[in-house]
Amino acid sequence: MGTVSKDVFQAMFNPKSVAVFGASSNEVKSGSRYLNALIQSRYPGRIYPINPGEKEILGLKAYASIRDCPEPVDYAIFCVPARFVLDLVEDCGANGLKVMQLFTAGFRETGQSEGIALEQRLVQAARGYGIRVIGPNCIGVYCPENRIPYGLALSPMEPGNIGFLSQSGGNAGRLIFGGFLQGMRFSKVISYGNGCDLNAVDFLEYFGSDSKTEVIGAYIEGISWGRPFLELVKEISGRKPIVLWKGGQTPGGKRTLTSHTGSIAGSYRLWEDALKQCGGVVVRDFEELSDTLLAFSAFPYLRGNRVVITAGLMGGGGGISVEGTDLSIQEGLELVDFPKDLQEEVASLLPNRAGTILTNPIDFGSAMSLGVLKRVVETVLRETECDVILIQEFFDRMLGLASEDALLSFFAELSRLGEKSERPIIIVWPPEAANHEGFLLRLKLIERGVIVYPSIRRAARAISNVSSYRARFGPARNPG
Amino acid sequence: MGTVSKDVFQAMFNPKSVAVFGASSNEVKSGSRYLNALIQSRYPGRIYPINPGEKEILGLKAYASIRDCPEPVDYAIFCVPARFVLDLVEDCGANGLKVMQLFTAGFRETGQSEGIALEQRLVQAARGYGIRVIGPNCIGVYCPENRIPYGLALSPMEPGNIGFLSQSGGNAGRLIFGGFLQGMRFSKVISYGNGCDLNAVDFLEYFGSDSKTEVIGAYIEGISWGRPFLELVKEISGRKPIVLWKGGQTPGGKRTLTSHTGSIAGSYRLWEDALKQCGGVVVRDFEELSDTLLAFSAFPYLRGNRVVITAGLMGGGGGISVEGTDLSIQEGLELVDFPKDLQEEVASLLPNRAGTILTNPIDFGSAMSLGVLKRVVETVLRETECDVILIQEFFDRMLGLASEDALLSFFAELSRLGEKSERPIIIVWPPEAANHEGFLLRLKLIERGVIVYPSIRRAARAISNVSSYRARFGPARNPG
Repeated sequence: MGTVSKDVFQAMFNPKSVAVFGASSNEVKSGSRYLNALIQSRYPGRIYPINPGEKEILGLKAYASIRDCPEPVDYAIFCVPARFVLDLVEDCGANGLKVMQLFTAGFRETGQSEGIALEQRLVQAARGYGIRVIGPNCIGVYCPENRIPYGLALSPMEPGNIGFLSQSGGNAGRLIFGGFLQGMRFSKVISYGNGCDLNAVDFLEYFGSDSKTEVIGAYIEGISWGRPFLELVKEISGRKPIVLWKGGQTPGGKRTLTSHTGSIAGSYRLWEDALKQCGGVVVRDFEELSDTLLAFSAFPYLRGNRVVITAGLMGGGGGISVEGTDLSIQEGLELVDFPKDLQEEVASLLPNRAGTILTNPIDFGSAMSLGVLKRVVETVLRETECDVILIQEFFDRMLGLASEDALLSFFAELSRLGEKSERPIIIVWPPEAANHEGFLLRLKLIERGVIVYPSIRRAARAISNVSSYRARFGPARNPG
Repeated sequence: MGTVSKDVFQAMFNPKSVAVFGASSNEVKSGSRYLNALIQSRYPGRIYPINPGEKEILGLKAYASIRDCPEPVDYAIFCVPARFVLDLVEDCGANGLKVMQLFTAGFRETGQSEGIALEQRLVQAARGYGIRVIGPNCIGVYCPENRIPYGLALSPMEPGNIGFLSQSGGNAGRLIFGGFLQGMRFSKVISYGNGCDLNAVDFLEYFGSDSKTEVIGAYIEGISWGRPFLELVKEISGRKPIVLWKGGQTPGGKRTLTSHTGSIAGSYRLWEDALKQCGGVVVRDFEELSDTLLAFSAFPYLRGNRVVITAGLMGGGGGISVEGTDLSIQEGLELVDFPKDLQEEVASLLPNRAGTILTNPIDFGSAMSLGVLKRVVETVLRETECDVILIQEFFDRMLGLASEDALLSFFAELSRLGEKSERPIIIVWPPEAANHEGFLLRLKLIERGVIVYPSIRRAARAISNVSSYRARFGPARNPG
């Protein structure tokens, strides 16, 4: 371990200069889109478009060759066909380039001997010049702190505490853009495709030592790096959670991923067992990955799996309370028992007793009052040893109780109450049940810092993953 | 069986007159909200608000007692406290009322001897007058065809082919309102709460014989009706699918549902096995219930589980294709194998080969063309024996390819292509990954008749449920 020098990671996550091969005046071309995204993101370093046929691209001076650049470049993005890459590596060597990232596909993942050989020659050539390679067949780096957008797309520039490494550029994109809308923020993300040179071991090691990264996620297809990776997981997991999603859980999935990144998947069961033994948090799909990263990131103080569930503030809370109980238990949570006197105390806070449930879950029986919700939450926090409160409500129905702004402020305050008591207060509200206005309200709720999960099963599973991790490794060292 | 006369169902689903106990000038009261919903829905029958203290309510003549109504009333809604109900039953008997529905709670579900006794006396009294009871502790009937709204809420008035019976008013409401936004339409829905008189057996039997109901769903908490229900499921399943969700799958869930509807849950495993043996489609949670009903309702022609999956029209299709394969297989689907010549044919339709996957799933490798998507779909329908095509895309990203209207028309046409070939073409697009413009686009897509599932796992599970049912019972008798 420790084989990749810090300079290499500095050059990719905080480059002083970026070259773009394949940038042109044709704005549809991927090279131009990479270039444009850098410019629009106000990336503060120097940008060198490389194209022998143009003088200026998107307002920047273009260079015929990277050899013409006035300095050794930190990071070069390749958006040229695979057949041109080898020759350009020589130019890069002459320039003194540190890291090259290949958006270019057509290598090992084709399954053709030509592509496989080309990838091998590429790595050899790069190594000869001391250049490290990300990819091929990947999107590359996202680092909002340093205004590096995620590849071709304008991206959120607000940094956070999640680091993510992914063999799939699409899955990294789903996490960045979808996650942003759910309140997730990232330290760094790296899409590394075929991983011909720098690979999962290198990036995991980096995230393990990066002070900005408190939670690590990974989407992985191949396992050719085997034992060193497992040892790293074991070493890092005691300090930071590592949430791991492996593609190729089925024979069909294994075939598909070989066409995707040319990886060999290995036995899923063996991988899962080994990773769990090493302390990895193993998840089965994108949703669970995203939900679990969100929980780790937003609730560093979350410790256990003892939950209190509420529903029915606007009516209809009975059946959803039964479901909430079933699914929470199925996903590994434990419902806090309410003793008789606590049931009576909760009852005394409600306007009616008819149609309510006073054990845990609490069904408010259409109490239609934010004040009631708040008093019940305060009582639950004071009187029980719950670790988390799940509030199942269709919030659009609450707009009758208060103005939109008052409603949003109320729930932001409730969330802070959870933070202060180190017991998350989480909203469960399925987006597919919302109309357009409801969905907009949902986004505004999240913007105010409230964490909203799309289903009780997904919330329960995420909390269960976090609490299992905490049970093994103890509370987070640097909460917040 | 056949114990409940057709007149009773006529009186509840197509009443010539409705009385509302508890209607008042206070518009916040549930009685007034029931009344208002009937008026706003332009329910065409006669409406009788019952209140001894008022002359007129919401513009309608109020009656001091149901005894004063000029005709025997078909359907009476009770929104008065439990302690008043028994005396009013006597009035109802004098009037000749056919069916009473109690929104009123405070009976068996309280677990108190008083409430239990009150419920028993209520049933006895009603039976003495030949009145049938729905509830107590329920929302009652929804029948859009006859402009009966779902309880207190303004409701969609477009009828469809799904019948749903539910012990939970909240779960029925979730299905009606959430389902509407996903393209589901209903023949009739009934929320029957404690089920003290009319219960699951009666409603299931009705839906079995109702020509407007082609797909039946049920949410059930208690199983006191045992064997007759199982026999009904067996008898009806050969003709119509019955999708069954049972609350109380865990010890905690069983306790909660006893507080909800006073039901006794029984062994979940025994129930599940028995229902499956009888041909029931057993689901585990609300999402699976809703997703499966949608698939049965929208795709009566869907037969098998052989799927073709596509992704990556706008890029990023590799990792999502791997996940699509894994989750489809895990949920019981089978991926159609593409022979070499079909792979070549697909390749010939794509602008680039680099970064694509040509087996099944197909990763378009950022083809960025609706024409390519259509030609590939046509080729797949012509050259393979697939039963369904799943298209995984983030549609908001496609707005660059065509105007919004052209995009919506394109996908509506693609859906019709699926209908014509009797092989559903389904979009998979997670709502939580959309911004609010994206969400609006999603709703518009659904409005045009396109079926959109929120995740590959949920789509695959729903299709798997339908195809297992068809494998056992053969194709639908009355497709469309």
